Amino acid sequence: MRLIGVGMGPGDPELVTVKAVRVLREADLVVVPVMSADEVGRAEATVLAHLDHDRVQRLVFALDDRGGATPDRIQAWDVAADVVAEALRGSGSVAFATIGDPNVYSTFTYLADAVRERLPDVVVETVPGITAMQALAAHSGTVLCEGTESLALLPLTAGLEVFEEALTHFDTVVAYKGGRHLVAVREVLAKHDRLDTAVFGAALGLPDEQVGPLPTSAAPYLSTVIAPARRTTRGGKL
Amino acid sequence: MRLIGVGMGPGDPELVTVKAVRVLREADLVVVPVMSADEVGRAEATVLAHLDHDRVQRLVFALDDRGGATPDRIQAWDVAADVVAEALRGSGSVAFATIGDPNVYSTFTYLADAVRERLPDVVVETVPGITAMQALAAHSGTVLCEGTESLALLPLTAGLEVFEEALTHFDTVVAYKGGRHLVAVREVLAKHDRLDTAVFGAALGLPDEQVGPLPTSAAPYLSTVIAPARRTTRGGKL
Repeated sequence: MRLIGVGMGPGDPELVTVKAVRVLREADLVVVPVMSADEVGRAEATVLAHLDHDRVQRLVFALDDRGGATPDRIQAWDVAADVVAEALRGSGSVAFATIGDPNVYSTFTYLADAVRERLPDVVVETVPGITAMQALAAHSGTVLCEGTESLALLPLTAGLEVFEEALTHFDTVVAYKGGRHLVAVREVLAKHDRLDTAVFGAALGLPDEQVGPLPTSAAPYLSTVIAPARRTTRGGKL
Repeated sequence: MRLIGVGMGPGDPELVTVKAVRVLREADLVVVPVMSADEVGRAEATVLAHLDHDRVQRLVFALDDRGGATPDRIQAWDVAADVVAEALRGSGSVAFATIGDPNVYSTFTYLADAVRERLPDVVVETVPGITAMQALAAHSGTVLCEGTESLALLPLTAGLEVFEEALTHFDTVVAYKGGRHLVAVREVLAKHDRLDTAVFGAALGLPDEQVGPLPTSAAPYLSTVIAPARRTTRGGKL
């Protein structure tokens, strides 16, 4: 029994690895998380660019983690884990397709934990994927880090204080999940004189993609803000 | 004239994106950095798994940045930039294949700056790639971040103090380029009670791959150390 978390990248179907495509094709069953059973999920759209529809099963799943491990959310993960465990008992391998990278803020982590409780012998593997941070950097022409620069990555669900502390101690700071906090994020960036160089992205690789300066009002939950290191050219730090 | 930095991932030829393969195949010329003209470079090995040899040109290039922007290193970048600029004048597009991601501690950043000085009209693009951090996480079964955890990424060339500060303020800490400092890195991790859970990797995806606990002696320059966040199960932080 193998459960494989496969990174589908940020949304552009071309930004998956050759390995991810092979693993999806070889898996006995491919499971995709969706918010509701009657809509195409974000990971699913990339999966379907490389795989036949009839080998893909939708799994209704809490896709964000705004609430942390609340009883309701634990129950949702448990229901999902029951479905996957049942599939694993009948199949040799189940691939769980997840946007981004399965080891970076992915619901796969919670699913794998819950499946392990049901099937202690399950082998869990992951295939890395391109993260939103990397896709936004490439799309916007932003260097994430060079030379001796440090990079901090955090979700704004951790609080604006953590974001501000990162701006103080680190060179490049990347914040996820800040859509609803954008006005406050702009204020913190301006205070640190880093608003002008900051880059915002949402729905990367999708038709409603947004890339550019930070919007002045709220934006989608799954958004990315990059505050690049202050730099001279050629690796110098300011 | 287009100069495209293409991420080749950590070494495993399957860990490149579908887009990277397409861009390499469509480029008029593919350039790969090598330490010396008579050996296959690390990025080159992955390129050659997807492309004919006769479309690939080696470029002797300073691949590490241990010395920062010293006169010798600037000269090496200048020579490389002259070669690439000359190729761009004769070709529509030149793809520069680089290990990892072209926006994450990549020599592509320096090359692009130097080419822009020579050809102000050049269009510079990048295609993201899987980083060593992600490959090591997948290979070792290490979750990089979940829930509200923060992640710090830094090169140990920035100094052990920066590493220690990151361990104090951040949940997961990833350090690159620490091969020669491993004994000191072990001491700092032990002091913060994080040596037992730390993971080490070098030469990922290559025949001489190393993955496991931190070695007790020096290791290759291009190495990765992950100190995962302290966790309970299901997203809880200790």
